[in-house]
Order: sequence, then structure tokens, then C-alpha cells
Amino acid sequence: MSEQSILKPYVIGLDLGGTNSVFGIVDSRGEIKATTAIKTQGFDTADDYVAASVDALQIIIDQVGGIEKIKAMGIGAPNANFYKGTIEHAANISWGKGIIPLAKMFADKLGISVAMTNDANAAAIGEMTYGVARGMKNFIMITLGTGVGSGIVVNGQLVYGHDGFAGELGHVIMRRENGRTCGCGRTGCLEAYCSATGVARTAREMLATTDKPSLLRDLNPEEITSLDVSIAAGKGDELANDIYRFTGEMLGEACADFAAFSSPEAFIFFGGLVKAGELIMDPIRKTYEEKVMPIFRGKAKFLVSGLDGASAAVLGASAIGWDISF
Amino acid sequence: MSEQSILKPYVIGLDLGGTNSVFGIVDSRGEIKATTAIKTQGFDTADDYVAASVDALQIIIDQVGGIEKIKAMGIGAPNANFYKGTIEHAANISWGKGIIPLAKMFADKLGISVAMTNDANAAAIGEMTYGVARGMKNFIMITLGTGVGSGIVVNGQLVYGHDGFAGELGHVIMRRENGRTCGCGRTGCLEAYCSATGVARTAREMLATTDKPSLLRDLNPEEITSLDVSIAAGKGDELANDIYRFTGEMLGEACADFAAFSSPEAFIFFGGLVKAGELIMDPIRKTYEEKVMPIFRGKAKFLVSGLDGASAAVLGASAIGWDISF
Repeated sequence: MSEQSILKPYVIGLDLGGTNSVFGIVDSRGEIKATTAIKTQGFDTADDYVAASVDALQIIIDQVGGIEKIKAMGIGAPNANFYKGTIEHAANISWGKGIIPLAKMFADKLGISVAMTNDANAAAIGEMTYGVARGMKNFIMITLGTGVGSGIVVNGQLVYGHDGFAGELGHVIMRRENGRTCGCGRTGCLEAYCSATGVARTAREMLATTDKPSLLRDLNPEEITSLDVSIAAGKGDELANDIYRFTGEMLGEACADFAAFSSPEAFIFFGGLVKAGELIMDPIRKTYEEKVMPIFRGKAKFLVSGLDGASAAVLGASAIGWDISF
Repeated sequence: MSEQSILKPYVIGLDLGGTNSVFGIVDSRGEIKATTAIKTQGFDTADDYVAASVDALQIIIDQVGGIEKIKAMGIGAPNANFYKGTIEHAANISWGKGIIPLAKMFADKLGISVAMTNDANAAAIGEMTYGVARGMKNFIMITLGTGVGSGIVVNGQLVYGHDGFAGELGHVIMRRENGRTCGCGRTGCLEAYCSATGVARTAREMLATTDKPSLLRDLNPEEITSLDVSIAAGKGDELANDIYRFTGEMLGEACADFAAFSSPEAFIFFGGLVKAGELIMDPIRKTYEEKVMPIFRGKAKFLVSGLDGASAAVLGASAIGWDISF
């Protein structure tokens, strides 16, 4: 261990999600020493968001001995640019319009170096360091949350692309005719179907277009969430299972196209939807094997993240902090 | 220059295409010293193909001073596995069914080391070494020939994937309903629309479904080729231009999805169809900019290969030969 890491034994990781922002202070062995969280939405400006974040962070920073114990901060955020430290045109965040130099804003407030990447890239780094992707050189992480994100690892390296924005697999087009409107301003994106809001929308569509009895019919259709679908599925509700099958089949079709791109050893799924277990993983695998190009059949693993909920993304974000050299 | 490269100053490059197999003997500066070719199709077995290849090769090997002047051989071939030196399930080749250890077969006949990759990967290596991709770390090469191939470069490295088969972008699904049958056994693949045979098929469909006058109506529909479309377009035929517009628009849509994957600095197009120039490049660019996710708009270059026809692939294949260490 270097003198530096003895003097500054911690990094801050921030998992900036569409709903919650989770902060963790992490040591060099990947142990989370303290954690806190704020709501991501509801702020008018990025300045307000950063101020609220720093207020919440200050409490846990004090718990570990003050800012002088912290080497750096890593952020995993939607639409984050790794090269520039900016969030750009984040459709799902109230204060995320335009180009926001979030890494610099945190760095100025905290007085430490801050680096940032896509939230899904951060989850992929976490999975590669501590989870089911240990030792893998080629895999694709797919995060199913408020949006659908991805972190692509090729030859053991994250794919950032020439501009830092690569790995937006939630925005490949799955329906070229009459596709659903997506938060990115286009139609037919994978995210419009397989995100939490996409699942809720599938529920409303299926309730409207079928007569199948369902526990979901007791709810106000406009207020149905993916959590309601999950609860109904847990009670054996057939329509809820149909919703998961539809979602899983589309994910399987999408993964079949992704295989043609980077032929990964594994697809790793992470996020709330994954809690449905085989109700979603089984149609993903089956549809993938049915739809994928023959040379890729039977080769890829379909795995669920081995890390606990939010901590994968926080650990991944923190890992970026250790790598900062500026 | 090492003693080795003085004693053995040449490598053999083989561009194994769906129609022709082009051989070149190349020096360390990328100069092609001798070249020959045979037809790829018509052989019953891979043994027959290799025997005919070696017969043709022997003449140019003798021209440069014999096999002892040759360090190694590199092959660019469809469905080639870089890691194993095999061709696997090559749909477009008469003798390409099953798994064929082509690198070893050539190595045994010639007594030199042989390595192999995807023909499109070989073209990408050629472009990176000698062409318009010099200095680029992230680009996608798309080859429009008998099939549609691709070579993907990320962080300056070719993407082979965990099994050596990555970069099959001709086989992403562009039409999920009522898609055309593809040589890979599935339906709706990009290749079924944007390959030379796909373009001929588009011509037949447009002749059947429109009343538009066209020079192509003078031909037997079943015998129309992409070359006929090119000749008609050259004479200002409006239907031929519609065919190119349809083809270019689909390529532009496909590239918009590819951007979400690896966000390349450039898409580089290579092959017979590219000779149509702006008739195809203009709809590619326009459709890409219209369909791509907002954060990628206006960033990617759309380039035509800077290397002369077959030599890009031959040079790329030969470059693999220089790298062989076994």
C-alpha cells in the first residue's frame, strides 16, 4: 500500500440513478465504510443537486475522519462523458438538460479530484472487480432500472468510444414501425419497453388489449408501476407473467444483435427487474438462443449480478476514483 | 529490419471473398510484389479449394524467389475464427459447411505459419495501416460485397469477442416482421438487404411493386444483378436511384444502432456498392443523422475506403501474417 493510500485511505463512490443518488465511502479493499443517499429528481438546477449532495455527504465524510482522508470521488451517472466529466442531455433527470460539468462542480465543492462515467459502465467495473465478471475479458452488463443502461467490456477494457458516450444499448431500435416514444426523443428504443416505466406501460397495454383476468385490474391503470407487476407475478398472476415474458423476449432479441457486435462471454443483468428471476431470465435465454446467429448459439452465459443492489454501482463508481491521476 | 525479415522478406495475403479468392505477396512496406486469383465457388470440398489455391500460388511464389522467401500467410475469410484458424458455417461458400481448419490446411501444404481472420476484419486492419483509418482508435469498417461484413476497432484493437467471431454486423436484424430470408438461416438481417444480392432483390421487388419506368425493365428480373443497377443508375435511371436510396437508408439506420454500441469516430465503407458514390453515401449520412440518438448527432465521419479495391483486404490479410509468432 502506497503512502498516499495510507494517508488518504478512502474514495467516494456516487451511483447517480434516475430515482436515487447513493453515496458510499469505500476503502481500498472494496469495503463500504459509510453510505448515504438523496433523491435525484426534483431539483431545478444542477447547482441545487450538488449542494444537497454535499450536505448529505458531509455527514459521512465526518464519520470517516474528514475530507483529508478521501483520495478522490468516482461518479456513475446516466449520459456521463468519461473523457470530459460532463453529463449531457440526460433525458431522465429534471436538472439534466444541456451539458453539465458535474465532475468539476463536485471537485470545486469538495476540493478533491472527481471522475465520472456512465452509471452502467460503473456497474460493469464493479462486476469485473468484485462480482460474477471477475476474470472475464468480454462481457456486456445490462442495467434494468428507470432506464436501460449498458456497460460493454471488450478485451478487458470498457468501451467508451471516440467521444466517451459508447454503450447506450438501451437506445438501439427494437421496433422500427409504430414504436413507443422514448425519453431520448426517438421511438422504438429498447429502453421504452424494458425499463421499469416500459414494463408499467406494457402492463397498461396488455390490460387494455386483452380480457385476461389479473390482480392488476384492481389498480388504477395510470398508477401501475413495475413494482405492482412484480407483486402480482409473485402471486402467480398470469398477465403479470405475460408482461415479464414480453419484456424478456425483447431483451433476448436485443442480446442476439449485441452478440453479432462483440460476441461476449456473458450478458450480466442488474436492477429491479432482475428480481423477477426466471420469470424474466428464462424468456431472455430462450429467445436469444432461438434468434441469435447460428455461430453464437449455446455459447453465451446469462447471469444475474452477484453484487447486492446499489452497492455494485457504488463500488464501480468508487473504483474509478482509485484510478484518477489528475 | 530484423535478420528474419531480410531472409524472409514477404508474407502472403489471401482475401477469400464470396466470389473471388485474391492472393498477394507483400513486402514489409505494404507493397504488393505479385498477385493471383482463383474463383472461390464451385469446389466440392475444402481440400479441392486449397489444392487449387496452392497451384495458383506456386507460380507467384516462384516469381519472388521461392517459399523460403515467405515468412507467413494471413487469410481474410468469411466466418473465420481468429483464435482457432477455422472457417465455421460459411453460408456463402459452396465448400464452407461445418468447421474447416483452413489455416492448418494451408500451413501443411505450404510449410509456413498461417493465421486467419474475418475478411472484413482484415480490411479494417488494412485501412488502419495504409488507408483512411490511419491514427483512428475507434472506427467501424463495413464491407458491402456478396455479403455484408464488418471489422470493429475499439481502443485501437480489433474486436474479436470471446470466441473469435465478433463483428458480424451484416447479421443484426433490421426487419423483425416479414424480413427477407438471409444466407445465415434467419430472416431480416442487414445483409439480406444491403449485400450485392440484397440490392438485386430490392430491384426485383421495386420492379414488381411500382409502375415507374426503368431501364431495368428491359432485363429478365431473375437475372438482374447489382452491377445492372449500377449501370442503370449511371445513366440517371430513377428506379435505380430509388434502389440505392432504400439501401443507403437501411445502412444509415443500422449505423445509428452501431453508434449506440461503440460510438466510432468513423464508419468506413468498402466494396462494390460504394462505387455508386453519393447515390448511396448521401442517404446513409442523412438517415444516420436523422435516426441516431441526439448525443451522437453530427459527430461521426462517413468515409469510403481509401485503398484500391481488392488490395485493401489483401494488405489487411497480409498484415496478420507479419504478426504471427507461432
